[in-house]
Amino acid sequence: MTPNQYTPEEPISSIATALAPAALGIVRVSGKGCIELVSKVFSRPKALLEAAGNTLVYGWIQNPGGEVPEGEVSKIDEVMLAVYRAPKSFTGEDMVEIFCHGGPAVVTAIQNLMLKIGFRQANRGEYTFRAFINGKTDLTKAEAVKEIIDSHTDASRSHAAGRLAGSLFTEIDDIKKLIIDTLAAIEVEIEYPEDEETIADSFDREDIETAARRLRALADSWRGEKLYQDGARVVLAGRTNAGKSSLFNAILKEERAIVSDIEGTTRDWLESWASINGIPVRLFDTAGLRETSDVIEAQGVEISRNLVHDADVVLYLVDSQSGLNDEDRQFIENCTEPLIIVETKIDKSSEPSVVEPVETTICKISSKTGAGLSDLFSKITAILTAGLSTERTQAGLGSARQKEAVSAALESVEHALISADDNYTLDAVVQDLEDALDSLGEVTGDVTPDDVLGSIFANFCVGK
Amino acid sequence: MTPNQYTPEEPISSIATALAPAALGIVRVSGKGCIELVSKVFSRPKALLEAAGNTLVYGWIQNPGGEVPEGEVSKIDEVMLAVYRAPKSFTGEDMVEIFCHGGPAVVTAIQNLMLKIGFRQANRGEYTFRAFINGKTDLTKAEAVKEIIDSHTDASRSHAAGRLAGSLFTEIDDIKKLIIDTLAAIEVEIEYPEDEETIADSFDREDIETAARRLRALADSWRGEKLYQDGARVVLAGRTNAGKSSLFNAILKEERAIVSDIEGTTRDWLESWASINGIPVRLFDTAGLRETSDVIEAQGVEISRNLVHDADVVLYLVDSQSGLNDEDRQFIENCTEPLIIVETKIDKSSEPSVVEPVETTICKISSKTGAGLSDLFSKITAILTAGLSTERTQAGLGSARQKEAVSAALESVEHALISADDNYTLDAVVQDLEDALDSLGEVTGDVTPDDVLGSIFANFCVGK
Repeated sequence: MTPNQYTPEEPISSIATALAPAALGIVRVSGKGCIELVSKVFSRPKALLEAAGNTLVYGWIQNPGGEVPEGEVSKIDEVMLAVYRAPKSFTGEDMVEIFCHGGPAVVTAIQNLMLKIGFRQANRGEYTFRAFINGKTDLTKAEAVKEIIDSHTDASRSHAAGRLAGSLFTEIDDIKKLIIDTLAAIEVEIEYPEDEETIADSFDREDIETAARRLRALADSWRGEKLYQDGARVVLAGRTNAGKSSLFNAILKEERAIVSDIEGTTRDWLESWASINGIPVRLFDTAGLRETSDVIEAQGVEISRNLVHDADVVLYLVDSQSGLNDEDRQFIENCTEPLIIVETKIDKSSEPSVVEPVETTICKISSKTGAGLSDLFSKITAILTAGLSTERTQAGLGSARQKEAVSAALESVEHALISADDNYTLDAVVQDLEDALDSLGEVTGDVTPDDVLGSIFANFCVGK
Repeated sequence: MTPNQYTPEEPISSIATALAPAALGIVRVSGKGCIELVSKVFSRPKALLEAAGNTLVYGWIQNPGGEVPEGEVSKIDEVMLAVYRAPKSFTGEDMVEIFCHGGPAVVTAIQNLMLKIGFRQANRGEYTFRAFINGKTDLTKAEAVKEIIDSHTDASRSHAAGRLAGSLFTEIDDIKKLIIDTLAAIEVEIEYPEDEETIADSFDREDIETAARRLRALADSWRGEKLYQDGARVVLAGRTNAGKSSLFNAILKEERAIVSDIEGTTRDWLESWASINGIPVRLFDTAGLRETSDVIEAQGVEISRNLVHDADVVLYLVDSQSGLNDEDRQFIENCTEPLIIVETKIDKSSEPSVVEPVETTICKISSKTGAGLSDLFSKITAILTAGLSTERTQAGLGSARQKEAVSAALESVEHALISADDNYTLDAVVQDLEDALDSLGEVTGDVTPDDVLGSIFANFCVGK
């Protein structure tokens, strides 16, 4: 998909809610003449055509006269229409949102009718693209919308909401201003040079250092933000009866993530999304890891090994009643991924710890009573956030694309400082700072090439 | 759930869209003071409080001041609020529909916030229940809403839309009028008796006969309507390589039903919803049915047998290249379910039919070219609709509950005719007709007992 496939003003239509039985569903249309088009299949065309922007109109969506298959009624569904008039709408164009009943058959029937009467099926992200080209949103806010929709936990949603509210846009704008002020000062210096010793004296170096510091903080924020977006893989391993299923269920019970389960339970492992201190975690309960001659079981063991290998954190469970055996020791010694040894069923045991200290983190828990779980969550969080910028900035980055552009801007700004230190010409400094401004313009979309735009919006869902 | 658990006017809140990532989601609130409650967590409280009914207000849903977890923003999501003022709303109460982004995390965060500020989680069907008690809908339309949401095919949706538009309500009302007119005539006769020979002369017998005929047509419609609601089971059987998978895929390609797939593909069979001439069909592709000593395969065969046993139609596939063998003959002879023998791969064969006529329907198809498929669909439809009332009435019944009440009304009306024929007292006829009116009142909800109401609405989805 390229922006060429987005044809502004052409009437487009799309289902905007998930296709599953629910109380309500939405079909959304936008573009020139879209209100008139919908009025052709609406039971109260006059009321719709005369409706002011930002109002709701009650009626029926119905087949236009004479096109009703035998034995069927012309009425499709009883609806409320939300009417928006340009430029006061999400896209900046005339829009109608059709609020119908939430059955997949209804929503589909209405969308099919829209296509029949002259709407084109909207491309992915096409509504947001129109909002962008009509100046209703910048790229940081547009990308935040996609993030919000895909959020796995409430914390992820909150980070994205900050960007949607403009935190990143404002931060980028502030940094731009620092650079623009400096460029203005240099322009004056070039036009009316004074006899100063060094280039650095001809502008406020502190402004550029501040810009560099703030850009670095932004660039550093990405790894943390990415963790909240994509989540991490936590794998439960251990011998049969070590308590894997109990811990799996205990974590889900306490910290179930907001999204629905990953579909299907295979023979070989269980997985589900959980929220651990707000971090979205894809939790895996593996089959036992024991060596076996049974072919099918051996496949399960192989899959478990691969899961462990791809893990961000491995929880190796040991039953406090039975203690470590050679198999456990071998796993612990050979495991190259970040590992937490979890001593389970401590509610049953009055004995001292069975796990001999090895070079790793140890946690004692009871899935039954919940004892030790919050300590376990802290330890998992510590591993996942190790090396991340501890200072949480107000604004963080929301995409790899933004990270790339911000890093480029940072490099240009740092180069400007070097140019100044090395007493290059003022023109060299100006060039560096202009490069930095260009890169920052890419973040918000002021100077983003068409193909980049295309790939951004193609990642959106249909209807957005 | 009983209607006692529905407390009219209490502010209730519910998510009204499916919890899956999508462009838009809806949280819906209703009840006394609900607009004021929402204004406490809305960025533009004044605009909301002053909004007229049936208008849209732009703003942010946000945490009330000072309750923001560290590092998070108070803003939850950028939304449009649809404001409805009593009595002009779906429930007849004040209502707000919050149109937010469609991520499960956002929708859940907003719903949780509503519960925190004083809304109660709505029970299943509670909005529709309020619409019903506030006289906004009758039971036939309320049940049609549930039907529309659950429709598996567009034809099913169309039948339900007719009832939502009032076709059944109007038909019941017309029949009631016939009975009420008769009762009025009898009243006159009782007060001012003339010396007529028989009771039958004292009122227009034809009206009651018409009522009986129309009630019978309604009662007869239920089996057909039920077929469109619940669908039928069609099972593909036959030897390995008979072409089961090809036909399965060919049917889905041409006649895929609107709903999403039934989740999960097991080792033993495939299933999916398909639409065959508008009838929702749950299509099963079984494992081979051959006798086997392999334990796992034997389980598959057992499951296939059960699928065949529960089928409404069995399609037994035979490869036209290889012809019938003893195994095929044995299956065909032993099959007690409605059976169609399907000769497959006819595109490959120039030979005459390999299937010898037995006492069953035969179909020749090519899944590759699509030849014969529409003939196959007609034959399946003929079996599924055999014995159904061929005369499609304008109004059909939408639930087993309606069927029961209509059948009771029919019985009372028929009894009234017998009473008249046998020259019973006029009082006996009056009693029968009043019983019939009571039963018809149950269909639309005029005289429906509380526990019946409770069980009707408890079957609805949350948010409706």
